[in-house]
Amino acid sequence: MTALGHAAPTTFSGPPRLTGARKGASVIVLGAGLAGMLAAYELAKAGYKVQILEYQTRPGGRNWSLRGGDSYTEVGGATQKVAFAPGNYLNPGPWRIPYHHRGLLHYCQQFGVALEPFIQLNHNAYVHSSKAFGGKPQRYREVAVDFKGHISELLAKAVNQNALDDKLTKEDRERLLEALRGWGVLDKNMAYSSSLKVSAQRGYDHAPGGGVDGAPTPSQIFGLKDVLDPKIWNTMSFYFNYVMQTTMFQPVGGMDMIGKAFARQVRNLITYNAKVTKIAQGENGVTITYQDIPSNAVREVKADWCVCTIPASILSQLDVQVS
Amino acid sequence: MTALGHAAPTTFSGPPRLTGARKGASVIVLGAGLAGMLAAYELAKAGYKVQILEYQTRPGGRNWSLRGGDSYTEVGGATQKVAFAPGNYLNPGPWRIPYHHRGLLHYCQQFGVALEPFIQLNHNAYVHSSKAFGGKPQRYREVAVDFKGHISELLAKAVNQNALDDKLTKEDRERLLEALRGWGVLDKNMAYSSSLKVSAQRGYDHAPGGGVDGAPTPSQIFGLKDVLDPKIWNTMSFYFNYVMQTTMFQPVGGMDMIGKAFARQVRNLITYNAKVTKIAQGENGVTITYQDIPSNAVREVKADWCVCTIPASILSQLDVQVS
Repeated sequence: MTALGHAAPTTFSGPPRLTGARKGASVIVLGAGLAGMLAAYELAKAGYKVQILEYQTRPGGRNWSLRGGDSYTEVGGATQKVAFAPGNYLNPGPWRIPYHHRGLLHYCQQFGVALEPFIQLNHNAYVHSSKAFGGKPQRYREVAVDFKGHISELLAKAVNQNALDDKLTKEDRERLLEALRGWGVLDKNMAYSSSLKVSAQRGYDHAPGGGVDGAPTPSQIFGLKDVLDPKIWNTMSFYFNYVMQTTMFQPVGGMDMIGKAFARQVRNLITYNAKVTKIAQGENGVTITYQDIPSNAVREVKADWCVCTIPASILSQLDVQVS
Repeated sequence: MTALGHAAPTTFSGPPRLTGARKGASVIVLGAGLAGMLAAYELAKAGYKVQILEYQTRPGGRNWSLRGGDSYTEVGGATQKVAFAPGNYLNPGPWRIPYHHRGLLHYCQQFGVALEPFIQLNHNAYVHSSKAFGGKPQRYREVAVDFKGHISELLAKAVNQNALDDKLTKEDRERLLEALRGWGVLDKNMAYSSSLKVSAQRGYDHAPGGGVDGAPTPSQIFGLKDVLDPKIWNTMSFYFNYVMQTTMFQPVGGMDMIGKAFARQVRNLITYNAKVTKIAQGENGVTITYQDIPSNAVREVKADWCVCTIPASILSQLDVQVS
């Protein structure tokens, strides 16, 4: 959301300090997702009379987890039955929290949501492309180490051929070569090749250990062609992205722990099964028309203000009359 | 330990299957660290009569955590009193478990030690050298992104000057330039310079957000000299090391949760406060002499076998008579 320009979490320096609600002033909040529940929570705290209308039968909106025993009927009508083992879950909505989403982190702390690290970058995980390495998955670390080794060798070669003398002072030149030798794990001839030293980064064929067979054997590096071909640099770059870097967080036990914690603060304000059909703004407030889904009854509620968190894709289908 | 060649965890394929203990055969284990307790556990399970002698008043050896209220008297006599807030702890011994320490991970699971990720690499942490960047700490990501940007620019320049034509086919050349442009975040002139695209990796001066001031402003990159000078490549390389890569683990609540879990399995076998002074091997077994520290009493115990896990630095000071 940050990257899309839809939120400004880095400017968060504490919850809003809302005061001075007009006596008896009322607010209808549309949607019991995190945004709606948080708005309701802060407005109620400030003295407003608040109610939330929610289409679904649960709070949290996109903040959601699926566990064994759950079932979900998709828009097209297909029903998914979840058969995960106890303790397992899947977050079909958001599933990771960047360290700089300070607003959310604040409310997790305030509402008692236990967080744990989210493993975003795992050097030992496999990267897989059906078009690369003969379709065989490779360890991230193997390919990433070989990529930096090969480009270090190439750059060192260019430097030593004086190809970059117009860009580098003599001192920069020496420092750069030292850096490439260390960072790229080049040998004494400034070449990148299979060795125990390289294996100490990319992994061994046989890891060092104790006992009779304790001596390590190096692994075979990939060629330059191999690491350029599958665009592995694309995969590596992903983890350099500001919003995707370590450290990230997740709630212990599933992402919906956040929605549930928010809902504990505003549970008496939520009306579920309320399908909003019309939003009409008048001179003295706003009138919301909704259908009570189980009974099909059409109802109207009025308030001085409305906070609408209905997604734009749904909102565009409603009868909205605002000045 | 793996890197030092003292262990062979990668060959672990399950606990040892010990059977056929001679009826009544006995083993003395010296040391109630993880190695000693594990040996005692497996030997006792196999039918041996086992006892453990431990110098200290607690199990775990180097596997240890300090919490508020603890105190520890160092060899020189100085006493450290720990005044951490509740829930905080420090692991003065080992504090992280690489993913490939399969033996330890096996026993953590078997003995019910809850593990959690250990954050080894944090892109948002500061790197600090009193000699670099005017002594001012810098974010890891800022320096790491600038390092790869600058070397990408230099290598692209060399490639475009045909300095590496003897090493690269025309196809490799094109692929390499594409990789450097993407991985190094170079601009259309293949230069590394401050931009919103670069800031999306290294961080912004003002991050993108909503509202009136939502437009992001790019951050200023460091120069090539700056990122070579502090040997930041050394810091970056650390996380490429096979034994230091993500993902790593730690026990929930402190490293000593492992020693405590091991001790629950063998608690009746441990004699604490036992300072071993002599190890004597004879024709029919081994005799261990130790001092009971509180009473100063000297005692002897005999067994058919001895498993010694006393550190070599201590062992070298003892009277050891083995054939």
